[in-house]
Amino acid sequence: MPCYTSPVHAEIIAIGSELLTPHFSDTNSLYLTEKLNEIGVDVAFKTVVGDNPDHLTSVAKIALSRADILIFMGGLGPTEDDLTRECVAAAIGREVRRDPELVHQLHERFAKLGRKMTENNEKQADVIDWAEVLPNPLGTAVGQWVDYEHDGAKRYIMLLPGPPHEIKPMFDEQCLPRLRERVPKRFLATRVLKIAMMGESQCDQRAAPIYKRFPDVQTTILAGAGDIQLRLTKSADSLEAAQARVDELAGLLEDELDDFVYSSHGESLEQIVGYYLQMRGATLAVAESCTGGLLSERITKVSGSSRYFVGGAIVYANEMKTLFANVPPLLIEQHGAVSKEVAVALAEGIRDECRATIGVGITGVAGPTGGTEAKPVGLIYVAVATKQKTDVVERRVPGDRARIRWWATQQALDMVRRALI
Amino acid sequence: MPCYTSPVHAEIIAIGSELLTPHFSDTNSLYLTEKLNEIGVDVAFKTVVGDNPDHLTSVAKIALSRADILIFMGGLGPTEDDLTRECVAAAIGREVRRDPELVHQLHERFAKLGRKMTENNEKQADVIDWAEVLPNPLGTAVGQWVDYEHDGAKRYIMLLPGPPHEIKPMFDEQCLPRLRERVPKRFLATRVLKIAMMGESQCDQRAAPIYKRFPDVQTTILAGAGDIQLRLTKSADSLEAAQARVDELAGLLEDELDDFVYSSHGESLEQIVGYYLQMRGATLAVAESCTGGLLSERITKVSGSSRYFVGGAIVYANEMKTLFANVPPLLIEQHGAVSKEVAVALAEGIRDECRATIGVGITGVAGPTGGTEAKPVGLIYVAVATKQKTDVVERRVPGDRARIRWWATQQALDMVRRALI
Repeated sequence: MPCYTSPVHAEIIAIGSELLTPHFSDTNSLYLTEKLNEIGVDVAFKTVVGDNPDHLTSVAKIALSRADILIFMGGLGPTEDDLTRECVAAAIGREVRRDPELVHQLHERFAKLGRKMTENNEKQADVIDWAEVLPNPLGTAVGQWVDYEHDGAKRYIMLLPGPPHEIKPMFDEQCLPRLRERVPKRFLATRVLKIAMMGESQCDQRAAPIYKRFPDVQTTILAGAGDIQLRLTKSADSLEAAQARVDELAGLLEDELDDFVYSSHGESLEQIVGYYLQMRGATLAVAESCTGGLLSERITKVSGSSRYFVGGAIVYANEMKTLFANVPPLLIEQHGAVSKEVAVALAEGIRDECRATIGVGITGVAGPTGGTEAKPVGLIYVAVATKQKTDVVERRVPGDRARIRWWATQQALDMVRRALI
Repeated sequence: MPCYTSPVHAEIIAIGSELLTPHFSDTNSLYLTEKLNEIGVDVAFKTVVGDNPDHLTSVAKIALSRADILIFMGGLGPTEDDLTRECVAAAIGREVRRDPELVHQLHERFAKLGRKMTENNEKQADVIDWAEVLPNPLGTAVGQWVDYEHDGAKRYIMLLPGPPHEIKPMFDEQCLPRLRERVPKRFLATRVLKIAMMGESQCDQRAAPIYKRFPDVQTTILAGAGDIQLRLTKSADSLEAAQARVDELAGLLEDELDDFVYSSHGESLEQIVGYYLQMRGATLAVAESCTGGLLSERITKVSGSSRYFVGGAIVYANEMKTLFANVPPLLIEQHGAVSKEVAVALAEGIRDECRATIGVGITGVAGPTGGTEAKPVGLIYVAVATKQKTDVVERRVPGDRARIRWWATQQALDMVRRALI
């Protein structure tokens, strides 16, 4: 992976002692990174520091020496622990001054909410000398923007609030336009290819000879259980030039990986299955044993899924398999609940019971207990029954309960997709 | 939140350019922080840096100046981008030397896997002068431990591999024992109270006057949709002393919050509902409309749930409500699918169909589309039917589709719990 493609580097600094506990992690920085990358800025450092004035001031000084863009997140509230304003001011040798207009606005804001403003809240009206105030319609803490020069080099410094729903609009609407005016113009083009039910090394073996011929395009492989994302990005002086290269590579990869690619613009497998079902005027019903509702949950996570998903049954106990999907008790007795035959009967039974076009049946051993030598943990059967035929697949899935269950639903969705191609 | 309770501070440094993209975040540090806190060490800084030798060396030097314990994660592989060994050595003014015994072990490891070792892999046998090698049975990159002195102060430096399944056992088995010998003995006691279906501010209003009387116990509130965690931790010279204070505070908070507290040792709501069902010899069946399988999925995520969960139905289409849960079509016509009456009929119907002790019915508008003035997005009905009675609750849940669905399942689980108390 090429390290830096841009001459302009940012450091993102998250402030708050809670971010140094085992319970919280900084998620804002991923969002900001994506937006910075889009305008051609690379993130070179990320730092997390607690509510300690010495630490925070020293972190600010270090950032000044090594990054062009400094983004401070958090520490703008009214409490004693909120020190970002003072410490950044100290690091750049400026003062903070209480802005009477902001004090007035704070009082008005509290009055509107019918609450009395306590003294300490006035602190949120402290502004670093010559900083621009970034209004915050969603909270009491305003942001600040500072243009600064450090050893003859330009520095763009932002003080932003920590809550995600405050920082995102403030960054998008107030910081990005300012940055666009100040940094050299770069455009970023991105494509995401998604691949189902292919091993990561098998995928890379086929894809690498192709993407290696495009060293100017950054290719990142993200692999999950039964799901791979190939992310292609390129930055260039013009969006057309960047997009053309990314599209060219995406096309070649799609040719090579063929129908393993289920989506080429970032859609989820659930969404793609939904599109296909609607396109074919088909409906879906499912009977889940070991996945316990996860398949239904994934399908119905998509808004509007009621147009093609009629419903289904969680057939955890054997009697439920008979009650809801009409599986003959004798069949379960003969082959066991975890068997190819029962998966097929579940798929066909639920299809008929629900009068759907397509039925899915899943049975297996999700573990960690309940495995036997003949039917070990990780053994799953997935069947998909259309009007024409029923396909069934047997797999041994490695991993824990969550992974086995996820993998079975991934297999099921991919089989439905392939049945509709 | 008190900032630092310990005199020994750590800095955790994650290395890898991929960690500076929008797609990856460092998750190892949360695990390490928990383990460090347990032996009385606070984390004072977290840094993420890319595969750039100048950046990495300078980050190492900065960490030496401000932390007692330096944990470097990643950058120990065989590629050109793997620079942690060289850069840490440079920062502390030492050399790296190729260890012939480690080279031999690498060759053996590859031979065992039936693969030829490429030249570049030998790099993984480079050891910083006077460092202790930390064997890695789960990968090719060994770790390294360095005892160092900086300006007369002791520094403990660890170089650890990036993959979570390699770093965790290496840290637990090889680093923690070394740290325990070197840092002043501190013991950490923790209790987690979990609270369902109570607002965060309402909870804090009742809890704060109590936990504020225990300034020596660190109280952290984590709030999700319909779920609050109160985490109580205290470090002290003896585990008994720490535990006694934490237990005392936990007891007082439990008295105050009463039956809103569903778990006092960290169990999930799904697990607690499972315990109660087993304790009462009861069984559960569910009929889900707007939650689309999420409730079943949460219940069956718990291993062994087949002992009390018989199954249920996803009754997305109206006909499914009739087919699986025996809801009279006329009832749906009269009151609408999203109504108190249909929720009750679903709960009672699925209970009877599945011959379970308890039945749950959920119906609602998860959005973002499908809302009307009379039945807006976020309106949900949850009913729980036991043999004795049926309870039903109507709620307007703010938020997006995912939050509304989660909230409805949380409400359902809490109602089942309360029915079993």
